Amino acid sequence: MNSQYKIALCQMKTSSDKEENKRRAAKLVEEAAGGGAGVVCLPEIWNSPYDMKLFFENAEPEGGPSCDFMSGLARKFGVVLIGGSIPECDGGLLYNTSFVYGASGEVVAKYRKAHLFDVDIEGGIRFKESDAFTAGEGLAVFDTGFGRMGVAICFDLRFPEMFKGMADAGAEVIFLPAAFNISTGAIHLDTLAKCRALDNQVYLAVCAPARNLTASFIPWSHSAVATPWGEYCAAADSRETVLYADIDTDYLLRVRREMPIGRQPE
Amino acid sequence: MNSQYKIALCQMKTSSDKEENKRRAAKLVEEAAGGGAGVVCLPEIWNSPYDMKLFFENAEPEGGPSCDFMSGLARKFGVVLIGGSIPECDGGLLYNTSFVYGASGEVVAKYRKAHLFDVDIEGGIRFKESDAFTAGEGLAVFDTGFGRMGVAICFDLRFPEMFKGMADAGAEVIFLPAAFNISTGAIHLDTLAKCRALDNQVYLAVCAPARNLTASFIPWSHSAVATPWGEYCAAADSRETVLYADIDTDYLLRVRREMPIGRQPE
Repeated sequence: MNSQYKIALCQMKTSSDKEENKRRAAKLVEEAAGGGAGVVCLPEIWNSPYDMKLFFENAEPEGGPSCDFMSGLARKFGVVLIGGSIPECDGGLLYNTSFVYGASGEVVAKYRKAHLFDVDIEGGIRFKESDAFTAGEGLAVFDTGFGRMGVAICFDLRFPEMFKGMADAGAEVIFLPAAFNISTGAIHLDTLAKCRALDNQVYLAVCAPARNLTASFIPWSHSAVATPWGEYCAAADSRETVLYADIDTDYLLRVRREMPIGRQPE
Repeated sequence: MNSQYKIALCQMKTSSDKEENKRRAAKLVEEAAGGGAGVVCLPEIWNSPYDMKLFFENAEPEGGPSCDFMSGLARKFGVVLIGGSIPECDGGLLYNTSFVYGASGEVVAKYRKAHLFDVDIEGGIRFKESDAFTAGEGLAVFDTGFGRMGVAICFDLRFPEMFKGMADAGAEVIFLPAAFNISTGAIHLDTLAKCRALDNQVYLAVCAPARNLTASFIPWSHSAVATPWGEYCAAADSRETVLYADIDTDYLLRVRREMPIGRQPE
């Protein structure tokens, strides 16, 4: 297994037109694969606006058209595809679900967002994701041709035990499709992303939608990749783009050797 | 109990002259009390240089001259004194120990640094604190006339479970006497301090020694106080100073209400 490889985060602009979202996703994944990325990530709720009123009508079951589409992209371009997330319907309930596909298009992981975005901030954002979605549970750690990885979604980032759990299970790179908002994103995203990477000595890759000022929910954007040393090695502005980062698991091992925090008692 | 009060961090310059260190500490604590602080903190190893070769000769037992001195300062100025830390000798072993005094000079907490600074960074710092000190254990959470507080020391900051433990035990303000070094301090201190405060929705106050370019160990300095919202409300440059911060436990409760991360499963 090669210790060095490239990942790409597709910071795509989502709209209320699902077919347009698919066209944009396809274009960005093609660009990422052409740019040499072996692992490509889409943002949270990439096929629908992040809008409470639209989750239900955009929801699809596992194996539905959006899943087929993602599987096809992974296979066509020969990449591991972290499929951001989509509203998934199952037995009358909705979940905010990430499907992960191997380079042959097979599902290698399925993860339902465990921590729902329920906040009510004076002078800031009010959002109650749990009015639409049901929380999932468990951790998503999976093996790829590039090593072991994990995936969590957005608000999960505020729960450190999840990231420790994935790192303890061997994840070297953790992907976080995430539609942070402009109120808390500006203040918290960098701190949280860098600290989870630093505490667990893993790479943490946050993939956000591009800024869309006409959406009911304006995402913070600013996708970024934090290294096991707690620094960004890649960071995007707020526009639609493909953000690349070089992963080096030898470097990860060096950080763990030089700063052996995993060997002291908690 | 008043929900608003002032704390002060004495970012003092330490030297190899213990009596000079005491004079500086006394001057800064007097200034802090005069400035209205009800809780005053000294830095890690304030009575000795942070130097492996000098810890042993500067070590004192509990109740020794440095303890008497700190107790006297707390009583004289009527403040809660977080006594940074000193090299403590006990039964032939050394500990990096923080003593906390109430406003009548009584000991209200004693904490021995649990996570020792053992790192070996290529092109950076190499230090093996465990060659001199023995690790302590447990958490230090204590009650004062200003509410419940906690104390940990420097490298402990890299272990999130400790801070969760103190917050779960009711600490609203956590003091961290800390001599970070210029290599890791520049990259990690802000991320760690803000993230521990944000994750646990507490105030986190880091009290460092002032920069001393002639010392064998050059501290990063930059004492700071992070709010429960993960922002600095006070931050020092690298020079000797008294840094004040306003604590507001009503604000802490508001943050916990608006962003109720403590009520979701880990």
